Amino acid sequence: MAQKPSIPKGTRDFSPTEMARRNYIFNTIREVFNLFGFNQIETPAMENLTTLMGKYGEEGDKLLFKILNSGDYLRGADRQLLDSGEASGKLTAQLCEKGLRYDLTVPFARYVVQHRAELQFPFKRFQIQPVWRADRPQKGRYREFYQCDADIIGSDSLVNEVELLQLIDEVFSRLKINITIKLNNRKVLAGIAELIGAPEKIVDITVAIDKIDKIGMDNVKAELAERGLSTEAIAALEPILSIDGTVNQRLERLAEVLSASPTGLRGVEELKEVVRNTDALGLRAELDLDVSLARGLNYYTGTIIEVKARDVEIGSITGGGRYDNLTGVFGMPDVSGVGISFGADRIYDVLNALDLYPEDTSRSTKVLFMNFGEAEKAESLKVIKQLRSHGISSEIYPETSKMKKQMAYANAKSVPFVAMIGESELQEGKITLKDMATGEQDTLDTTALIDHLK
Amino acid sequence: MAQKPSIPKGTRDFSPTEMARRNYIFNTIREVFNLFGFNQIETPAMENLTTLMGKYGEEGDKLLFKILNSGDYLRGADRQLLDSGEASGKLTAQLCEKGLRYDLTVPFARYVVQHRAELQFPFKRFQIQPVWRADRPQKGRYREFYQCDADIIGSDSLVNEVELLQLIDEVFSRLKINITIKLNNRKVLAGIAELIGAPEKIVDITVAIDKIDKIGMDNVKAELAERGLSTEAIAALEPILSIDGTVNQRLERLAEVLSASPTGLRGVEELKEVVRNTDALGLRAELDLDVSLARGLNYYTGTIIEVKARDVEIGSITGGGRYDNLTGVFGMPDVSGVGISFGADRIYDVLNALDLYPEDTSRSTKVLFMNFGEAEKAESLKVIKQLRSHGISSEIYPETSKMKKQMAYANAKSVPFVAMIGESELQEGKITLKDMATGEQDTLDTTALIDHLK
Repeated sequence: MAQKPSIPKGTRDFSPTEMARRNYIFNTIREVFNLFGFNQIETPAMENLTTLMGKYGEEGDKLLFKILNSGDYLRGADRQLLDSGEASGKLTAQLCEKGLRYDLTVPFARYVVQHRAELQFPFKRFQIQPVWRADRPQKGRYREFYQCDADIIGSDSLVNEVELLQLIDEVFSRLKINITIKLNNRKVLAGIAELIGAPEKIVDITVAIDKIDKIGMDNVKAELAERGLSTEAIAALEPILSIDGTVNQRLERLAEVLSASPTGLRGVEELKEVVRNTDALGLRAELDLDVSLARGLNYYTGTIIEVKARDVEIGSITGGGRYDNLTGVFGMPDVSGVGISFGADRIYDVLNALDLYPEDTSRSTKVLFMNFGEAEKAESLKVIKQLRSHGISSEIYPETSKMKKQMAYANAKSVPFVAMIGESELQEGKITLKDMATGEQDTLDTTALIDHLK
Repeated sequence: MAQKPSIPKGTRDFSPTEMARRNYIFNTIREVFNLFGFNQIETPAMENLTTLMGKYGEEGDKLLFKILNSGDYLRGADRQLLDSGEASGKLTAQLCEKGLRYDLTVPFARYVVQHRAELQFPFKRFQIQPVWRADRPQKGRYREFYQCDADIIGSDSLVNEVELLQLIDEVFSRLKINITIKLNNRKVLAGIAELIGAPEKIVDITVAIDKIDKIGMDNVKAELAERGLSTEAIAALEPILSIDGTVNQRLERLAEVLSASPTGLRGVEELKEVVRNTDALGLRAELDLDVSLARGLNYYTGTIIEVKARDVEIGSITGGGRYDNLTGVFGMPDVSGVGISFGADRIYDVLNALDLYPEDTSRSTKVLFMNFGEAEKAESLKVIKQLRSHGISSEIYPETSKMKKQMAYANAKSVPFVAMIGESELQEGKITLKDMATGEQDTLDTTALIDHLK
């Protein structure tokens, strides 16, 4: 019986048009990564589960795709666990040694530690690969999606932050997407927690205030109360979140408010240095300070960066920050790094919404030769060979089908030119070229054809 | 406790140098695919196991990587099968709905059938993606490796074969690898089986004679006897396998030998047409006829193609052929197609063995700026910004470390130029540029620097 074919939910096929658009994004990002001196690496899709487990929280462990051991996978499984009828983590670990990577950050940390002896630090790498998460699929959220990461590891200089902001600016400028880059610093968040007398509540505070854009100040206050913050602490927090003015004015004000917290002040100083150096170079993007920005915070220790598209309502399209101990869990402590991750799928959505693709993005073949018969085909193939040697993408319709069918193929492929070698052209040694946009036709020899198409 | 990190056996990390070399191969293949009018698609890494199972034989089913269902995976499992203690295929199907793709051909067939309404036939697609096989890892055989496939589906014209031979020729000519392209036709093999009175033994015959290069005629004969072929049949086979002369002479001779088999003769006619048209266009590669070539044969029905490197002892580096019913299993019968697959990993091994990479393959950053302090750094960043706007890949060493350390970084990255803005350059508005190959130094202004590096 024939199967009705489908693909797993949350995954996608990419058609030629979609691939052309996605390649436009990936190529732009890759070119800018190279322009800034980042080198590409790749890591395997499968990592040992010991590498991945425990790195993304309890929820993340559940969202990892796990690969059933090959061969007799039941042999290593505890009989009692199997009989329990419960799919416990312990049983899973006995059935599966490997999992699909969940992001590019943990594999990168693993890579750095594993290859430390071969690497020259600071190490600037980029990585563009798919990741997999067993999230519930929904609009804009997929189980397989690409991440495009650039990191500098082994340097705590803030020039790296300045470089990454320039890099973000260059990518989105090339893609013609207007953006706001939001900045914060984990030390500022720590200072705030200190200031309101609840340093141990920093995670609760940042998780709550991270939502301020979405749910508003009142709801954030309610959530903070729920998380056990006193009324006084919440009251102390409010003015910090409401500081306004220019970025520099707000940084000055923040320094005053946080004057009692050395950590907080260091965070403000770092932000000032990044902003000052960035301003000196100029940025086409809007730069904004957002003290509610936390981005999960599980490993950021300094600068926090987030990018929003200004003309489309969508979540952050790029994010990143500084971390001081990414490789510690793999036995290499005190390595500071800073990185960013471009969300290719959201960028794709933004470009689609604004229709910002260059006109020729989805073109591949420049000229299609009609196929009128044996001798005409043989001559066409000779001309095609010459065109290709000049870098002109060309092909022949493989069958001697009716003209209408051959033209339908040309249209489906958005071919800009159609070439015809019929009986008379064959005799004269010429080619008739039709411009598909204007409908104009010209009869040329091969040399003129090459000149015209180049 | 810190873990000692590692990756699953049979998988690989790719360093910046390795990635640069791999990208050289992938970019070359991709450019040629585009030049010939093939359009790129991508399919998900995970396919439903119902799509994959039964397509690669019993052995292939075992070599599929299967993904454990998320959540309570034991719920759908048969208690009795679990208790049996045996990892049966039936139990696996209950625990796993998805698997990693094993090749690009079956996902492509699935894609064509699933998207048939959106596609214009003939459909020329290429696909460059990793595949996964739970094979026992050994030298040159990996559990994750890339395939680079180009197929034309929905056309039975032999012009497609001619095009694919031209395409192979172009790829290896660009890579500077000397190759022999071996041709055969499944119908010739069927004719041979008919001729020796054992048409039902075609699979046995081809499996055995496929090994003639490896194990020699005598061992092939022994294997054929073992597989139940009569002494007469084996005797009839020998002269066919020993036909010699030029490709055209051998085709003529083959037509005589197979004159009693209409199928066999059709195969010879197809080969003649492909060879004639290819000869008319010219081929830099050597073209060879190999009637022992079978390539597994499970789905080829016409032309069979295999490429060998002439200067390195290694298996086939590219292969393919025509199939008449690839999509039948998914409910779309009678669609003819022809395709080839480049083995990127073996091509990589060949290029490494012959050291055929262009000199600048592993270069990324063109100029590295030394970092001498706050003011020098700020000025360097301004110059870097200008260089980048001219497409010159450049970066600054992020720390004000000792010169020796900064130079070690430049050397590790194979940076061809180092730029220095020290105190005196800062005063004069100049940059000192050092050519790392010659050791020569020049002091230039920004405009001259850009001209020099462009």
